[in-house]
Amino acid sequence: MRILVLGGDGYLGWPTALHLSQRGHDVGVVDNLVRRHYDDEMGVSSIVPIRQLQRRVATWKEVSGNTIVPLIGDLNDHAFVLSTLKTFEPEAIVHFAEQRSAPYSMIDREHAVYTQVNNVVGTLNLLYAIAELNPDIHLVKLGTMGEYGAPNIEIEEGFIEITHKGRTDVLPFPKQPASFYHLSKVHDSHNIMFACRIWGLRSTDLNQGIVYGQSTPETAMHPDLETRYDYDAVFGTVLNRFCVQAAVGYPLTVYGKGGQTRAMLDIRDTLACVELTCLNPPAAGEYRVFNQFTESHSVRDLAEKVVKVAPFDVRIESIPDPRVEKEEHYYSAVTTKLPALGLQPHLLSEETIGSLIEIAGRHKHRVNVEAIRPTVNWRTTRSEVSVSGGAVGE
Amino acid sequence: MRILVLGGDGYLGWPTALHLSQRGHDVGVVDNLVRRHYDDEMGVSSIVPIRQLQRRVATWKEVSGNTIVPLIGDLNDHAFVLSTLKTFEPEAIVHFAEQRSAPYSMIDREHAVYTQVNNVVGTLNLLYAIAELNPDIHLVKLGTMGEYGAPNIEIEEGFIEITHKGRTDVLPFPKQPASFYHLSKVHDSHNIMFACRIWGLRSTDLNQGIVYGQSTPETAMHPDLETRYDYDAVFGTVLNRFCVQAAVGYPLTVYGKGGQTRAMLDIRDTLACVELTCLNPPAAGEYRVFNQFTESHSVRDLAEKVVKVAPFDVRIESIPDPRVEKEEHYYSAVTTKLPALGLQPHLLSEETIGSLIEIAGRHKHRVNVEAIRPTVNWRTTRSEVSVSGGAVGE
Repeated sequence: MRILVLGGDGYLGWPTALHLSQRGHDVGVVDNLVRRHYDDEMGVSSIVPIRQLQRRVATWKEVSGNTIVPLIGDLNDHAFVLSTLKTFEPEAIVHFAEQRSAPYSMIDREHAVYTQVNNVVGTLNLLYAIAELNPDIHLVKLGTMGEYGAPNIEIEEGFIEITHKGRTDVLPFPKQPASFYHLSKVHDSHNIMFACRIWGLRSTDLNQGIVYGQSTPETAMHPDLETRYDYDAVFGTVLNRFCVQAAVGYPLTVYGKGGQTRAMLDIRDTLACVELTCLNPPAAGEYRVFNQFTESHSVRDLAEKVVKVAPFDVRIESIPDPRVEKEEHYYSAVTTKLPALGLQPHLLSEETIGSLIEIAGRHKHRVNVEAIRPTVNWRTTRSEVSVSGGAVGE
Repeated sequence: MRILVLGGDGYLGWPTALHLSQRGHDVGVVDNLVRRHYDDEMGVSSIVPIRQLQRRVATWKEVSGNTIVPLIGDLNDHAFVLSTLKTFEPEAIVHFAEQRSAPYSMIDREHAVYTQVNNVVGTLNLLYAIAELNPDIHLVKLGTMGEYGAPNIEIEEGFIEITHKGRTDVLPFPKQPASFYHLSKVHDSHNIMFACRIWGLRSTDLNQGIVYGQSTPETAMHPDLETRYDYDAVFGTVLNRFCVQAAVGYPLTVYGKGGQTRAMLDIRDTLACVELTCLNPPAAGEYRVFNQFTESHSVRDLAEKVVKVAPFDVRIESIPDPRVEKEEHYYSAVTTKLPALGLQPHLLSEETIGSLIEIAGRHKHRVNVEAIRPTVNWRTTRSEVSVSGGAVGE
């Protein structure tokens, strides 16, 4: 298939592009490279060094013989979106190209507005371009399990049958997102569902859990092909961050009680889910939602698993929760659609945690421990976030 | 009370400002006057002539002795929002200041993006300013019954208790909005709910039905105080538009089967609902939703009522529905909270319809019949909308 990966220079976009290319698809990568700019803005960096996109695709050509077309531009530029789709003629578009950090969106008004406008307008431009050029293009959109929040009922895959006062309907699952970033994804979901309805577009919304892991079969083929590994409080997600903290002997910072339970998956399962989704498109006019995760864990349980695997003593430190969220709650979510398409999950193993700690250990001279503690507080309208000293290493 | 009316130069904002002023409140009106620009863009105008905002407030001062402070500026300009709130020190803010036409938002990509960015960013700026300056300010936000769409179950006021697989929770009522405009209101609702949760703000979301009527006790006090009366297919809402069509002998254009059923209310009830809401603020941190309507009618029933009242022969013409919507459907919505606060509804009467036809008849030389037929088609990504000849009259 001809597949465009939007946001293909990022943590998941890049390994997804490699995986699809390795599996024989014709892949183009679209990115405005702003993720690298966020690092500069925050004074942080990936603990594993990453190459520029041009070098990445050149090395991939050398290593695999396959071509990935790099297309540098911004989804907020509609003329760029139109010309890119016209030239590449994709059958599927995998859309990772959004500002994806909850803390980043909560820094202040400017970052909240940026996140919502960037994400919502980029997706609107894409919907219009698909409708204008070829409504059969399958839009595979990365959503998040965070759109649902933590309701006291089981989370279904996008829709729920409700019986109320003797009448029944199947309606969109109610959303309770917990940051301006998560809200932007909810806005997107509503816009995409509507575009499918009025223009007959085909879209799959992948409501993804928190991804952990750093190495995939393709990124492991050459150091130039490695993907990001973030540990800072703004872009580092929970399990990856704990493994870096363990590697540098920094206490594992659990926010509040640590009973926050989240859906999760291995980075290799993200790649498999995306390919399975591309290979099995929805009908014309269909908007469907897949819950993309393999298991759920509480933050406290994750910390305990890391403590157990770490080859040296690490302690857990509970710190005040910078977010406004339930610190203990019911959590159960359904995921049946991706397994039905053939997903074979990599469940969280001590081996994976050990490997993440090992990778972090190899690069630990690049860690700036100042970047680990959360500085963005949900309760205030403006947080100070710059890390003194900036990122370390190279 | 000290009350700021945002969008106070518009169809409902202006009579609301007059009503609140007449009832003894200290009122400021904020508007960027863009509604007048939309008229120029579309080549249409209100059938009843309206004065500039400066003349309106000057005449109001002469007629009533009361001062309304006009504040010209844009909610998308955060510095303006901050300085306005700092200077005026409102206890309540009534927020009408959004692009409010579904067809306008569906003209093309530019109008869709404009509508969502304008509405969402304006409201975000307001939420941040309130949180920064005085979280006790009560934000009275105009939403729409159109946020809910037309589900096959009864529509509750914002939230619904759901029992699912043996567990129960009260969750936001699922939303199925049917235009990029209605989507912008859903995005707002989610953002406001979240801001109340994290910052302890107080807000009431008034999910309003379609308003009909043109005259209120205050606008009737002087011709300079009249409010808009729109009949064009982009900004004219259903019953007002039918009354103008009847007055000029133009067939009543029912879209499709006409079984589309909508919640509605009299313009005088809008004013009463807004004041009742201001006088009864929610608790700190509370986000509540009132369904603001008094009765429901199908479009076909409304057309038949107008035919019956019209003093001369008018016929009904069914035209292809330019919108993507159900043309026949179940519709039932709850409204108990505003009546519980004391709302005494003006139900739709033949007298009101007759009065609307009479007002339109007085100004019928100003009608450009070319503006009546819908030109914006939901199924295409770009519609041509300019009315040749432009608006007629003065």
